[in-house]
Amino acid sequence: MEKNSTLPKKWGFGGKSEFKPEPVTTIRGALTFLHSNLDPSDKRTVIPMSHTEPSAFPCFNTTEIAADAIADSVRSVKFNGFPPTGGILPARRAVAEHLSQDLPDKLSPDDVFLTLGCKQAAQGIIQVLAGPKSNVLFPKPGFPYYDHFARLYNVEVRYFDLLPEKDWEVDLDSVVAVADENTVAMLIINPGNPCANVFTYQHLKKVAETARKLGILVLSDEVYGHLTYGKNPFVPMGVFGSITPVITVGSISKRWIVPGWRLGWLVTHDPNGILKEHGIIESIKGYLDSSPELPTFIQGAIPDILSKTKEDFFTKIVKLVKEDAISCYEGIKDVPGLSCPTKPEGAMSLMAKLDLSVFDGIKDDQDFCLKLAKEESVIILPGICVGYESWLRITFAIDISSLQDGMKRLKAFCERHSKKA
Amino acid sequence: MEKNSTLPKKWGFGGKSEFKPEPVTTIRGALTFLHSNLDPSDKRTVIPMSHTEPSAFPCFNTTEIAADAIADSVRSVKFNGFPPTGGILPARRAVAEHLSQDLPDKLSPDDVFLTLGCKQAAQGIIQVLAGPKSNVLFPKPGFPYYDHFARLYNVEVRYFDLLPEKDWEVDLDSVVAVADENTVAMLIINPGNPCANVFTYQHLKKVAETARKLGILVLSDEVYGHLTYGKNPFVPMGVFGSITPVITVGSISKRWIVPGWRLGWLVTHDPNGILKEHGIIESIKGYLDSSPELPTFIQGAIPDILSKTKEDFFTKIVKLVKEDAISCYEGIKDVPGLSCPTKPEGAMSLMAKLDLSVFDGIKDDQDFCLKLAKEESVIILPGICVGYESWLRITFAIDISSLQDGMKRLKAFCERHSKKA
Repeated sequence: MEKNSTLPKKWGFGGKSEFKPEPVTTIRGALTFLHSNLDPSDKRTVIPMSHTEPSAFPCFNTTEIAADAIADSVRSVKFNGFPPTGGILPARRAVAEHLSQDLPDKLSPDDVFLTLGCKQAAQGIIQVLAGPKSNVLFPKPGFPYYDHFARLYNVEVRYFDLLPEKDWEVDLDSVVAVADENTVAMLIINPGNPCANVFTYQHLKKVAETARKLGILVLSDEVYGHLTYGKNPFVPMGVFGSITPVITVGSISKRWIVPGWRLGWLVTHDPNGILKEHGIIESIKGYLDSSPELPTFIQGAIPDILSKTKEDFFTKIVKLVKEDAISCYEGIKDVPGLSCPTKPEGAMSLMAKLDLSVFDGIKDDQDFCLKLAKEESVIILPGICVGYESWLRITFAIDISSLQDGMKRLKAFCERHSKKA
Repeated sequence: MEKNSTLPKKWGFGGKSEFKPEPVTTIRGALTFLHSNLDPSDKRTVIPMSHTEPSAFPCFNTTEIAADAIADSVRSVKFNGFPPTGGILPARRAVAEHLSQDLPDKLSPDDVFLTLGCKQAAQGIIQVLAGPKSNVLFPKPGFPYYDHFARLYNVEVRYFDLLPEKDWEVDLDSVVAVADENTVAMLIINPGNPCANVFTYQHLKKVAETARKLGILVLSDEVYGHLTYGKNPFVPMGVFGSITPVITVGSISKRWIVPGWRLGWLVTHDPNGILKEHGIIESIKGYLDSSPELPTFIQGAIPDILSKTKEDFFTKIVKLVKEDAISCYEGIKDVPGLSCPTKPEGAMSLMAKLDLSVFDGIKDDQDFCLKLAKEESVIILPGICVGYESWLRITFAIDISSLQDGMKRLKAFCERHSKKA
């Protein structure tokens, strides 16, 4: 049969340009690009120090308690029907109780909206905040899917700095400098992705006070909540909800090492009713009405997952991640041309600074990562993916022997390309 | 603490107006409205003849084989990581093989994109088809979430008729009449929602030929595929993919009675490569890159769910649905003011015509359903929800004793409100 030549050029497809992945500035795009540059004749294992997928390594297997909760839920035949918008009550209540353990004001189930991972929560809130003139403030370095969604919904993004020499704290002066009367929100990611920092109580309070002065809400990405192993404990931003409205996004992806389960939430911390008054709660519900739902039987498992998981599982995971973090941090000290300004304290990746003057024939961070992939089968993301040129974003949460192998190859690569070599 | 009075009115929130549910013209909106009009003093059980949720009734429990497949998958620890865009290969391959059983051209896994139910598949394809001037053709009566997504993405919708007196076949003349050079696609739903009809092979072929003449693709919603119990067997639209490009959406929601699992797919039937040539495949991937993913362990269960489910489970479900369908259809014959033009042959709901002249003080279909809810605690959707005023959309897939109770109350209501009464 001939091609249907009558099919016209009229198919302009809104999706086409808008959704086309950008090859270097999204993580997925960068990964595809780097993987396509691997040398197939290198028979060594590829070391993935590029995105947080520890679940691929047996040492990071999740707890059987969580898998059993899913199995029990799906077998109960109680959770086969459509879920209501925002999730079933027992699941929302379980998340509210779980998060309230660390908060002065107890959350209600009505403050909790279940989502398909943090990603859908982030997508939703960016869409809700989109207005014809509104702008949002994102940290630099940051996490690229926020930028992606802001572009998708035509929200102007302005950047404030994180300060590498001050434990990657928010440069509050830069927040004030870029905000204007159309600014609606600022984003923080705590524990830090990609900086491995953990904000102190005092610093978070200052963030809230700055936001209050500017009349904006704080969006806090806490997907790495409680994954801390340094001097600062994890403090949820919801603690400061009475200073300025706070929206947090979280999930079990990182703490339980199950990113593929897509079990996340969006939570409003709004003791003064400001989000409600401004129609934001209603808009979040409206967004979720038009968006895919977390499968009901996964929702049905949430109470058991959150209440039955044993402390020793979390302790084991944090210990493994800490071991990786320190190994990576100490290892960088021996790598010519690389430096890490602060010791990692939380989450699963760190930022390492590239001193390009040390190298011969390495143009920039992208060029570095491309050659590293080709020559050493090690995948590391160039800093430009997180808005930070001349740096590297190194994900260390893999099994320790793979990490050590990766660090060895990274060192060999840098030594080989050093001017003095 | 005082309310933060500095929070400005600047929060225009794009989401607010755009996503606000419309109270009467969406199913969810209508259901909320009808439920809010129930009489709390009526102690009888509410009979839900309004949306397809048979999973609430034990007789419609899904097969243990499907639940076991999920349990095995989640316990295997092989499916805890992020899924790739469109789904993991074994799952896409299993869907391709499953659907290919009924097709002349075998599907490849690359033709299959896993989605969160049909809803995400529908949302995706409408978004992909959105262009500055493009329009799409939808059936009348139809299914409202297609209209909802078209509004959301500013796609113009034009309606063609289904012909109640001709087994709800597509009025092909009306398709040609409303199409123009900016028409990109036409939608069919087969087996029919809400009309309970099943298109013949010959009719589907004519649909494909009409689409080819118009240079448009056919989007076929086959969520009720194989749920047929009349004279016409289910023929998938993909059979005609060589006449004009076809995109089908489907899921296990209906056949396995697990709508809450959100396990769906979007499949391209494009033997001539036209969708690829026009960038549609790329756009679908782009859409899915920016959209929530079906949890990986659900994907991991797909091969077992599709290959291990026994024929006798499907036979049992079809038998139950048929019993309901016939009971509802025959029951309507005894209800004054109601008629059903054709015997139901597939899917889970039918359209019944209201003769308003029979009744006293019933203004229209909405008024009918509102009073029915209030007086008889029976929830039936007004036809206006599916673009068909003065009709009712009756969902019959509930347990048979509830259905019989509902039909009895419906009859009592109509007799009470008849002019002769």
